[in-house]
Amino acid sequence: MAENWLPTLEAATPQLGFELAIKLSRMGVKLTQPSDEVRNKLRASYEQDSQQLIAVSQVIATYFQTIAAANNYWRS
Amino acid sequence: MAENWLPTLEAATPQLGFELAIKLSRMGVKLTQPSDEVRNKLRASYEQDSQQLIAVSQVIATYFQTIAAANNYWRS
Amino acid sequence: MAENWLPTLEAATPQLGFELAIKLSRMGVKLTQPSDEVRNKLRASYEQDSQQLIAVSQVIATYFQTIAAANNYWRS
Amino acid sequence: MAENWLPTLEAATPQLGFELAIKLSRMGVKLTQPSDEVRNKLRASYEQDSQQLIAVSQVIATYFQTIAAANNYWRS
Amino acid sequence: MAENWLPTLEAATPQLGFELAIKLSRMGVKLTQPSDEVRNKLRASYEQDSQQLIAVSQVIATYFQTIAAANNYWRS
Amino acid sequence: MAENWLPTLEAATPQLGFELAIKLSRMGVKLTQPSDEVRNKLRASYEQDSQQLIAVSQVIATYFQTIAAANNYWRS
Repeated sequence: MAENWLPTLEAATPQLGFELAIKLSRMGVKLTQPSDEVRNKLRASYEQDSQQLIAVSQVIATYFQTIAAANNYWRS
Repeated sequence: MAENWLPTLEAATPQLGFELAIKLSRMGVKLTQPSDEVRNKLRASYEQDSQQLIAVSQVIATYFQTIAAANNYWRS
Repeated sequence: MAENWLPTLEAATPQLGFELAIKLSRMGVKLTQPSDEVRNKLRASYEQDSQQLIAVSQVIATYFQTIAAANNYWRS
Repeated sequence: MAENWLPTLEAATPQLGFELAIKLSRMGVKLTQPSDEVRNKLRASYEQDSQQLIAVSQVIATYFQTIAAANNYWRS
Repeated sequence: MAENWLPTLEAATPQLGFELAIKLSRMGVKLTQPSDEVRNKLRASYEQDSQQLIAVSQVIATYFQTIAAANNYWRS
Repeated sequence: MAENWLPTLEAATPQLGFELAIKLSRMGVKLTQPSDEVRNKLRASYEQDSQQLIAVSQVIATYFQTIAAANNYWRS
């Protein structure tokens, strides 16, 4: 994993922070299952499964908690 | 996702913060499964499934934790 | 949802904070599944299912964490 | 629930804090399913089910997090 | 439970903190299912079940979060 | 476990912190199921199971939360 895909947790806006949370949730899966082929096959399945979509949503929520704290909650 | 749907984590009251937590829990699903048609179909199913409703409730609780911290818990 | 059901996270005692956590865990479900009829049907089922009761208990624990922080843990 | 079962989150030692976490995990279930008869029946089942025991353990861990913070981690 | 098994959350190193997290995850189960015989039987089963091993890993992660905070993250 | 596999929670960059989170998530499993043979067999199974991959991702997210806090979120 030579690529530098996570240079910072700083995000200019809450929305960009949310998008970063999604990215992190995917990287956790990608680094556990590196095969694009397998992941694409699995994605086709879990995208139709509300239980798994909710579980993905839980992972995103956990990363967003971290990123929001890192950005001092974007308090004005 | 050009739309600006999350300008701030600030909420005037705990109740508005709770509603924002619900919104975030839905956006996590929406950005993972963008098809309105598929999501509507899944919703019809999980709305009748207590296990999944509890799982959704867990996601909301996690976002509410973040939003409450962002608003200093609306301490008077 | 015109009703003001969450005016504050402040609770005079830990026990009242715990009761508020239970209330929030239920509101997360209620706002996702607004039909009283469906919820009552589901409740009859999950109240007999230890796995789901434990999952509810997890949601309550998460809200209690937030409420306890909001009240500075009721430190004397 | 007239009884005062949670006067404080303070615990003299980490171990007493852990025992309080167990108590809270049980109260979340008890207040959702108040029937002693039903809970005893369910307990006989989940006590033999490792998956549910792990889920209970997760709830306890979450409460312990709150109680440890409330007690400033019992730092010497 | 007369034994004093948790005198402190302090750990000299992150690794000792991790081992303490594992201990706490087991105590949560032990205090819920005190029978050594039953737990040994269940262990033989969940040790062969990746889903349950991941769930155990989640509990450990939660305790480690608490212990790391208690030790100020062992910052140098 | 004589080996010193966790000398610090400090990581020079968020990405290295993420990699440490993955390592911790694996150590939780490894210390619960020490047999390389069994773990390799289980890995072959859960790597093809999106539900379990999401659960692994949740564990990683929890460790990353701890590591990010330990590193003051790598704020510039």
